[in-house]
Amino acid sequence: MKELSRAVQEGAIAYLKQQYKLFAILGVISWGLGLLSGFVPFAFITGGFFSALAGFIGMTVATRANARTAWGARESLNAGLRVAFSSGTVMGMTVVGLGLLDISIWWWLLYGVFDVAPEEIPPIMITFGMGASAMALFARLGGGIFTKAADVGADLVGKVEAGIPEDDPRNPASIADNVGDNVGDVAGMGADLYESYVGSIIATMALGAVASLGLDSITALQAIQVPVSIATIGVLCSILGTFVVRAKGDASQAVLLGALRRGTYGSTALIAIGSFLLVILTLGSEFLGIWAAMIVGLIAGNIIGYFTEYYTSDHYKPTQLLSNEALTGPATTIIAGMSLGMLSTLIPVLTVIGATLAAFFLLGLYGIGLSAVGMLSTLGITLATDAYGPVADNAGGIAEMAKMEPHVRERTDALDSLGNTTAATGKGFAIGSAALTALALLAEYGNKIKVTDVVMNINLLDPKILIGLFLGAMLPFVFSSLSMRAVGRAAGDMVNEVRRQFREKPGILEGTERPDYAGCVAISTQGAQREMVVPSLLAVIAPILTGIIFGPFTVIALLAGALTSGFVLAIMMANAGGAWDNAKKFIEGGAHGGKGSDAHKAAVVGDTVGDPFKDTSGPSINILLKLMSMVSIVFVTTVIALNDLFIRIFS
Amino acid sequence: MKELSRAVQEGAIAYLKQQYKLFAILGVISWGLGLLSGFVPFAFITGGFFSALAGFIGMTVATRANARTAWGARESLNAGLRVAFSSGTVMGMTVVGLGLLDISIWWWLLYGVFDVAPEEIPPIMITFGMGASAMALFARLGGGIFTKAADVGADLVGKVEAGIPEDDPRNPASIADNVGDNVGDVAGMGADLYESYVGSIIATMALGAVASLGLDSITALQAIQVPVSIATIGVLCSILGTFVVRAKGDASQAVLLGALRRGTYGSTALIAIGSFLLVILTLGSEFLGIWAAMIVGLIAGNIIGYFTEYYTSDHYKPTQLLSNEALTGPATTIIAGMSLGMLSTLIPVLTVIGATLAAFFLLGLYGIGLSAVGMLSTLGITLATDAYGPVADNAGGIAEMAKMEPHVRERTDALDSLGNTTAATGKGFAIGSAALTALALLAEYGNKIKVTDVVMNINLLDPKILIGLFLGAMLPFVFSSLSMRAVGRAAGDMVNEVRRQFREKPGILEGTERPDYAGCVAISTQGAQREMVVPSLLAVIAPILTGIIFGPFTVIALLAGALTSGFVLAIMMANAGGAWDNAKKFIEGGAHGGKGSDAHKAAVVGDTVGDPFKDTSGPSINILLKLMSMVSIVFVTTVIALNDLFIRIFS
Repeated sequence: MKELSRAVQEGAIAYLKQQYKLFAILGVISWGLGLLSGFVPFAFITGGFFSALAGFIGMTVATRANARTAWGARESLNAGLRVAFSSGTVMGMTVVGLGLLDISIWWWLLYGVFDVAPEEIPPIMITFGMGASAMALFARLGGGIFTKAADVGADLVGKVEAGIPEDDPRNPASIADNVGDNVGDVAGMGADLYESYVGSIIATMALGAVASLGLDSITALQAIQVPVSIATIGVLCSILGTFVVRAKGDASQAVLLGALRRGTYGSTALIAIGSFLLVILTLGSEFLGIWAAMIVGLIAGNIIGYFTEYYTSDHYKPTQLLSNEALTGPATTIIAGMSLGMLSTLIPVLTVIGATLAAFFLLGLYGIGLSAVGMLSTLGITLATDAYGPVADNAGGIAEMAKMEPHVRERTDALDSLGNTTAATGKGFAIGSAALTALALLAEYGNKIKVTDVVMNINLLDPKILIGLFLGAMLPFVFSSLSMRAVGRAAGDMVNEVRRQFREKPGILEGTERPDYAGCVAISTQGAQREMVVPSLLAVIAPILTGIIFGPFTVIALLAGALTSGFVLAIMMANAGGAWDNAKKFIEGGAHGGKGSDAHKAAVVGDTVGDPFKDTSGPSINILLKLMSMVSIVFVTTVIALNDLFIRIFS
Repeated sequence: MKELSRAVQEGAIAYLKQQYKLFAILGVISWGLGLLSGFVPFAFITGGFFSALAGFIGMTVATRANARTAWGARESLNAGLRVAFSSGTVMGMTVVGLGLLDISIWWWLLYGVFDVAPEEIPPIMITFGMGASAMALFARLGGGIFTKAADVGADLVGKVEAGIPEDDPRNPASIADNVGDNVGDVAGMGADLYESYVGSIIATMALGAVASLGLDSITALQAIQVPVSIATIGVLCSILGTFVVRAKGDASQAVLLGALRRGTYGSTALIAIGSFLLVILTLGSEFLGIWAAMIVGLIAGNIIGYFTEYYTSDHYKPTQLLSNEALTGPATTIIAGMSLGMLSTLIPVLTVIGATLAAFFLLGLYGIGLSAVGMLSTLGITLATDAYGPVADNAGGIAEMAKMEPHVRERTDALDSLGNTTAATGKGFAIGSAALTALALLAEYGNKIKVTDVVMNINLLDPKILIGLFLGAMLPFVFSSLSMRAVGRAAGDMVNEVRRQFREKPGILEGTERPDYAGCVAISTQGAQREMVVPSLLAVIAPILTGIIFGPFTVIALLAGALTSGFVLAIMMANAGGAWDNAKKFIEGGAHGGKGSDAHKAAVVGDTVGDPFKDTSGPSINILLKLMSMVSIVFVTTVIALNDLFIRIFS
């Protein structure tokens, strides 16, 4: 068991090294091109560094916790949960802690040491966010490609062609599959949420600097510091919340879910109270609008989280009805899943609209940023309840490979299913906050182009705006297409590698020869590195090129078009994928003939289609939206200058 | 053979009667509610009436041509093509002829008889377009639901459960399936393209009235009449083009394709020359911008058409690569098809952007309308080459059911495949022109709300605009979800009906008892009527409700958001569906093991998923976009008044 666990750790670290190297090269190139100057390249690098560190620490803890969770599950469900949840807590606290640490260090450096004016600090911070976003995109895309390539390769050749069970150590791709779960689900998610977290805080700081001009008796300094203070309260309350997550030794699954919920809701209530006191005591009761905007975000996050669970959990009708479709085959399963995903966009869009209006009514664009910060203020604990899922999943894999007693696997499966439920809520928060943060960044871009002395003239009927909307609406689709293709191609390489090993080393299947695990890990690593280049470049080049050719107003329309269509597409993909996954699990739980039935086979097709939807393309869109906004903001001066040049050359 | 053909005709007519009844009720209700007044209710009704008539005549000819095409194919491929293409020509000319006729009658009535000022005529005409749009949505949605319910029901119970071949007369749903091909593909397409055609002309007339203010020495009357004149030239040149479509008796498929292409390109060249002369002779050479804007549309249509074919025809790489994915099962087939569909949105979006910019540069918003008219000016002949496909498809069905010689079926299949190629180009024109027409209507809505004395203040960073974009981006997804669900539910009813007949009349399968064909037709009819109500209402209610609550500026953003995200989604669905269809045909042609192989089974899953994509949801989105715009324009005064009331009540 220890040997397997170490192999997984080594593979994961080898992969991440590659990923970080690629990021460093990107940073050096931008610097060399002179695109970044002053503090900016350092901010970019630290953003990426801390984002990577958050993912790395989370993953290290998770890979170490895998085997121990399996061991704990031998004893009881509760013991397994305690180990898994502890590692999730480390991850959650690492993400929020590093986020606040990094922001604080930069603040101290710029404000304290270099004496930069408060209003000028947020723009530098946005470069820092851009670094975090770029790294998060790498982590999500690369990790997603890695894990799906290994997953598909292991299933297709191992399970289907060679007929050996899932997670069988004879499968050369089995270690790569386990590594993938760690680098994709854990490190990828960590980097992603780190980016969301600091992104929302930084965007709000930037808007605060402008908003303070319109608010009486609040200084720019105060307006800039509010989001950081709220986030700090959130971290403290999240830590308190984790202490509530405990149950008796023989607790059932329902009791454990109750314990997790108690932790989350307890933290939420504490944050509401704490930030109320903060505003009253430090700013005065006339600024309770700040508190209200934040609460709007918290409520919106809970609504989106609830409906994410409603549409994707097999405890509710939509996913149960989807599992019925499996009775008539894979085609109807796919159609119904797509339809479910599309319909599930309604409530999140209405919720974001409601939150946007309420927050804007309270405090203008600054309010929108504050609502994003509010939504993510519970991240410490929601991430904890989210991140332990993959740990439980991997513990199951280890239990299988180490041939532990069947009840261990049953318990890790129960933990995994529990994790799926809480993860759905977490995903809702991630998607909702991405929309609000991107809105805040859009607003900041609007401020920027006003500041740079271009006449503000954004008319929805101007063709420059219309073509920006068209381009923006298209980008998430093309980006998703590229990321799904990447998964397919990398999976093809893996299939060939596993087939080659089975062919050249016939002893593997008989259990007499050791498969070359590292070879498969290397294939996944190379595939991920190679395939994530084009979609990542798209995110950076699209807004810059659009700006150079058509000017900044087309860029703002591009960002708005990408935000609206990307938000809807991301929810559709995430929820369709989640529902297919759980419809399959519902059938495996005994419905419609259970495992091995025709309905199960149809549901497996749905689940396989859903994998890249929910784990690669869907979440990457969230990052894409924010990265494009930040790139636009950071390079705005250069792009406007190049646009002038472009116009002069062609007219 | 004659008996079967008559059964199909009767079923189709029975279905259409139901559909027209529903439309009439809708018209009467709107009238009764006082929403429509003056000439407006008449215009609404005639729009729907002519749209329905276009579909009806096309379908009548098509159902009569089915059997005769099969008969012709006994003789030679060319003879089969001649019969099928003639019926397609009738359809094409009916659509454009009725479109021009209806516009002319209204023009004559309003301008000649009632002495209405030219500038006031286009708004009334838009009501007429709204009627055509509503009917087209009914025809596309209802027809799509009808045909897919019958198709899935026939396949699932007949082919899979009872093991009888496709198009076997023992299958009770076989007649309904054939009826579906007629009411969905032929009558649905006719009504749809009628709507596109008159929509583009009317929107451009409306913009012409405003544009004339800015153009020297051109009267509103002339600017309004230009689109009608261009369309008239288009009809004449299309008729000339159809004469070129002929080949020798023993011509191969490639030669026939060449003949079809010669007809289309010949017409295009003639139209370019004819409209050049028209502008020079009637307006003068200083107005050649009008001609140029129209040519921009023609070129853009050909580019989009070419790339539609590129992405969906099995003569090109994308679909061939997609068929490779079938080797690894249905899941990879679905993922790769989605990815293909998403990527295929790139060129059409860039083309529409280019066309919009060029047309706007030439003649402002009026130019955008003219480019849509230009794109559709060849509709007479493109529709002819498009509409004969379903005729050939049905001829194949009849050949099968009447047990004709195998070479007849081979020839009708060859004709069908030819039809698929030309239909792809036609679909590209339909999608491209929908985008440009919707843009023109958006512009007209902008003019309207300026006219009605509301201060023009459309700022992309105003939350009212942002929420409109969010709502708009979501609508096509929710609409598609509803229409796909509708197909699923109606298909479920059909499955039950066919199962019931097999169970209660065991003689059917032995060939001793006659199945109850009419029962299945009735099931499909009821399903279609019932299921199209909610999505249709969504199209009408969404812009009105948004306007009442948030005001006209949110409506314009809603229209823009729906246009951009809907355009991309529609292309994605249409092209993914087309590629899955042809990847299946490619395998049936012998690739990857041919019919009956595992790859073929996987490809069939893709094709089944693609059916509602390409025949129901995808094309309906095009109509949705235009219908929403027209509803917004027609009800703008009422909505603004109700919005004022709403604001007064809630503040």
